[in-house]
Amino acid sequence: MAALLLLGIDGGASRCRARLRDGSGTLLGEGNADPANVFNDIDQARSSIMAAATGALRAAGLSREDIARCRAGIGLAGAGSTDLQSRLLEGWNPFASIRLSSDAYIGWLGAHGGADGAVIILGTGSVCYGQAGSRTLTLGGWGPDISDEASAAAIGREALRRSVWAWDGRIAATPLAENLLGMFGGAPDLMVQAARTATAADYGAYAPLVFQFAEAQDTLAEAILRDAASHVSVMIQRLASAGFERISLLGGIAAQMRPWLCSSTASRLSEPLGDAAEGAIALARR
Amino acid sequence: MAALLLLGIDGGASRCRARLRDGSGTLLGEGNADPANVFNDIDQARSSIMAAATGALRAAGLSREDIARCRAGIGLAGAGSTDLQSRLLEGWNPFASIRLSSDAYIGWLGAHGGADGAVIILGTGSVCYGQAGSRTLTLGGWGPDISDEASAAAIGREALRRSVWAWDGRIAATPLAENLLGMFGGAPDLMVQAARTATAADYGAYAPLVFQFAEAQDTLAEAILRDAASHVSVMIQRLASAGFERISLLGGIAAQMRPWLCSSTASRLSEPLGDAAEGAIALARR
Repeated sequence: MAALLLLGIDGGASRCRARLRDGSGTLLGEGNADPANVFNDIDQARSSIMAAATGALRAAGLSREDIARCRAGIGLAGAGSTDLQSRLLEGWNPFASIRLSSDAYIGWLGAHGGADGAVIILGTGSVCYGQAGSRTLTLGGWGPDISDEASAAAIGREALRRSVWAWDGRIAATPLAENLLGMFGGAPDLMVQAARTATAADYGAYAPLVFQFAEAQDTLAEAILRDAASHVSVMIQRLASAGFERISLLGGIAAQMRPWLCSSTASRLSEPLGDAAEGAIALARR
Repeated sequence: MAALLLLGIDGGASRCRARLRDGSGTLLGEGNADPANVFNDIDQARSSIMAAATGALRAAGLSREDIARCRAGIGLAGAGSTDLQSRLLEGWNPFASIRLSSDAYIGWLGAHGGADGAVIILGTGSVCYGQAGSRTLTLGGWGPDISDEASAAAIGREALRRSVWAWDGRIAATPLAENLLGMFGGAPDLMVQAARTATAADYGAYAPLVFQFAEAQDTLAEAILRDAASHVSVMIQRLASAGFERISLLGGIAAQMRPWLCSSTASRLSEPLGDAAEGAIALARR
């Protein structure tokens, strides 16, 4: 009889990550694929999950057919809504079993191993999730329109916005602003046109440039990251005042944001036990 | 032979306004209609212009057919683009003559009568336009995605965003936040859903509530208006440093924003000679 396979899926708005372990916890393989945001597209979420899972199986020396042996735990951006969860699962389950949750929940499960604590997930979006016993608290994570102020999307969007200020002379031009404007022919017209249909992931794609220029003391990049960091501070304060003692920073831009937090804020953070993919494996194991 | 009719059209993102004068400058009538934003919909812009013009003719005791006697000057939000201008005018001219420009240009023409100066137009969007001799300067006015930080749209959107903060405890709940959340059933879900497809005018529709609650010292409303005012201050500083001496505040929320400017900033403002509709009439007369 074939041994137990545990598959953890961390599906974010910029990429989908799979990790495969056996029942004893040994790492077998990992895989990556395109975004798996159920808000945007259920079909794409399914095919990204399959692509990441297949990649992890291949890395483990297993075949695509072994997917039917996997007990899957899946955390998806946007999957906090039970309506979206049931739409994703309707007539679809290629695994031996499937447990579905939000990216925030698997982040929490990975960071604290199911014990009391909270996570601040800084990725394409930004969301906080805390759980202590049966009590839960969620902050943000509602998407780029009126939320997610400490996200890669917010950082990228703000970089475009302030490049316009640099272009019209409201702030000093900096290498970051010149670089961004240069991508759009040197003037705001095409930049504004691109913004009109930009998704969170589209905006977030400019965040790495902001971090890169901030390292070279670009004043515009620094101002944007200070503002994003102040939103993280507010989140930490809110979580701490709600009684959470273990608070961990997770997500694609967490490591790069950490140096921008003031030290009194940063000192309240605990190292996560594991990442969100590990939380998804723990979900699969339940 | 019929006397000269001068028709000025001020077409904004929230409404379209028409004013009719005879050749000697006597006011004959005014009319209002729905928005006339060429960015969003050329057909709607044309029909709003016609509706506002017809309203002004009716108020003047003239008939719809008299539209063919009018020399029209038209300023439209979004009509800074020559491409949009030519699409609007393609195969369409119900007037005796037509001159088309941006809302910013007719604002400037009305406020300074064609003399050196600048205008800051605070409406659904926000834009600055200055002209001194042949030299021009434009700030903002690129729409709600990455621009227009001192607009009704920005104020309304920020009110929704910060209501979410109040809901999750990041800031204190205030009557404004409770009022806005109450419009969406008391939680962010439906608010976020509405934001996903909100236009600038949709966001701007919440601005009157922010001004109303700010008068009653609502701390959230006050913070939002202070932030918007600081963007106006930056615009004034930029225009002043570019050498503009006459700077006027125009637009649907200009009068309500003025008390929120610090006095050193406000003291740099000059009263406009006339409004944007007057500028459109001056454009028609040329």
